[in-house]
Amino acid sequence: MKLLLTGSTGFIGSHLIQKLTELGISTTALIRPNTVTTRLDQLGVPYIVDTGDVAALHRDIKTYSFTGVVHLASLFLGTHSPEQAEQLIHSNVSFPTRLLEALKGTTVRWFLNTGTFWQHYNNEEYRAVNLYAASKQAFQDVLNYYADTLKIRVITLKLNDTYGPNDTRKKIIPLLLSQSGVSLLLSPGEQCLDFTYIDDIVNAYCHAITVLDTAESGYYDDVYAISSGQSYTLKQVVSLMEECLEKPIPVEWGATPYREREVMYPWTGGRVLPGWTPTISLKEGIKRIITL
Amino acid sequence: MKLLLTGSTGFIGSHLIQKLTELGISTTALIRPNTVTTRLDQLGVPYIVDTGDVAALHRDIKTYSFTGVVHLASLFLGTHSPEQAEQLIHSNVSFPTRLLEALKGTTVRWFLNTGTFWQHYNNEEYRAVNLYAASKQAFQDVLNYYADTLKIRVITLKLNDTYGPNDTRKKIIPLLLSQSGVSLLLSPGEQCLDFTYIDDIVNAYCHAITVLDTAESGYYDDVYAISSGQSYTLKQVVSLMEECLEKPIPVEWGATPYREREVMYPWTGGRVLPGWTPTISLKEGIKRIITL
Repeated sequence: MKLLLTGSTGFIGSHLIQKLTELGISTTALIRPNTVTTRLDQLGVPYIVDTGDVAALHRDIKTYSFTGVVHLASLFLGTHSPEQAEQLIHSNVSFPTRLLEALKGTTVRWFLNTGTFWQHYNNEEYRAVNLYAASKQAFQDVLNYYADTLKIRVITLKLNDTYGPNDTRKKIIPLLLSQSGVSLLLSPGEQCLDFTYIDDIVNAYCHAITVLDTAESGYYDDVYAISSGQSYTLKQVVSLMEECLEKPIPVEWGATPYREREVMYPWTGGRVLPGWTPTISLKEGIKRIITL
Repeated sequence: MKLLLTGSTGFIGSHLIQKLTELGISTTALIRPNTVTTRLDQLGVPYIVDTGDVAALHRDIKTYSFTGVVHLASLFLGTHSPEQAEQLIHSNVSFPTRLLEALKGTTVRWFLNTGTFWQHYNNEEYRAVNLYAASKQAFQDVLNYYADTLKIRVITLKLNDTYGPNDTRKKIIPLLLSQSGVSLLLSPGEQCLDFTYIDDIVNAYCHAITVLDTAESGYYDDVYAISSGQSYTLKQVVSLMEECLEKPIPVEWGATPYREREVMYPWTGGRVLPGWTPTISLKEGIKRIITL
């Protein structure tokens, strides 16, 4: 097994590459010219720099004889400015299309893709919460075409909220954990959230990699939902964190309105990835972050 | 009614803009910096030049107070080279995404989009014949998000083969009509084709424009199939043309193989646009081209 990984410096990617390195799985990172490679160098992970030239990328991929691609890179924007609309398409559709194009005539037999629960606003089969989610859906349609014509196996893991140590994203859990003194101004807090701990996410990717890499020949395009399956209202999440921290977190509930298209209940229509089960409860996960 | 039209210099666009001008419908073309404007100037059609700057495009669209957008522009490639993959995404997804983004906070209430029968290889709900078709499907996902959040009405007209006078595209009918002397090297010729004459296509767009512009407030995202509904094998098409031309067309059948993913039977799963009926048979259409 020889993997090419995109998004290796992101939250999930950095945890996944550490795990893959521990497991001794040969992994190469696909990075941008401006990516800081300190962490990859520490781990001894080789990398390919994507300059935007599809022919060069194709040659590099051929040289390494990869068996599969794990695609985690994405531009995430909860809301976007007018100028950012095209950037979302560029990062989340154009870039991975170029990558797929570069796989033609190589040894790559499978592609592990990442989607989002936000492709299912109001629990619909497809309704995007934001342009980010629409760009993920758009890419799945392109990916489906390549799966079909390159005869590669494809799995898309759709993720909901994720959390864990070393999370530099502007997400609610790191925000609450770093809170001190001043009251946090939050929405009314009745929205249901479903957080999956990073170790469970990494295990889901490792499991999907095994499924893809050991599968019989043939191709398919499958989609699975990855989540803890345990919903808590934002208010319950804060209570749980106060319990774990053994101190109150000052919050002013209802100080801000819900977001436009706030997801009140997570998508429930997804198929579970067979053979994968989340094992870390929200309480356990929060404790782990605090202890680290 | 005030329209903004993309793709005004293409085959369908140039016929549509002529018709809209005849009908006295206020239409402005959205063009690229390098578009030749001779024909637009002749017709007295004003135009906005899209420089790639979404803020400038937004200001221009606001100035004109358009009620709707007719989107015909697209990069069509039956097959693509590795370098062209991103171009397809750029022209068929990124550009119209920027256009939609520029519509925020304007008077535009509807968007008429163009898709292709090739989004339905083997008559499937979605299976792209080529990357061009995949890019059309991808854009529909993005368009659906904007319809939903901008609260605009959307119709996508999915087209099959089209033909008519002044067709500079490398399509089979103009190719056969311009043929003289040397034998044309063709596939075995058993694939079924469904050609719609340009006047019927133009009428379909005019009808959809009326539907969209006169609809009650509220938004939706509808898809209709536009085709003659009459299938002929390529062999039958050639016979029909020989009959109309009153001379044989030298063809070497089976000299080339079918294309990869050749569509042997056109998609039949589409809904017909209510109130629109094609009126020109293939024989009548070919005669019109010959007579002109």
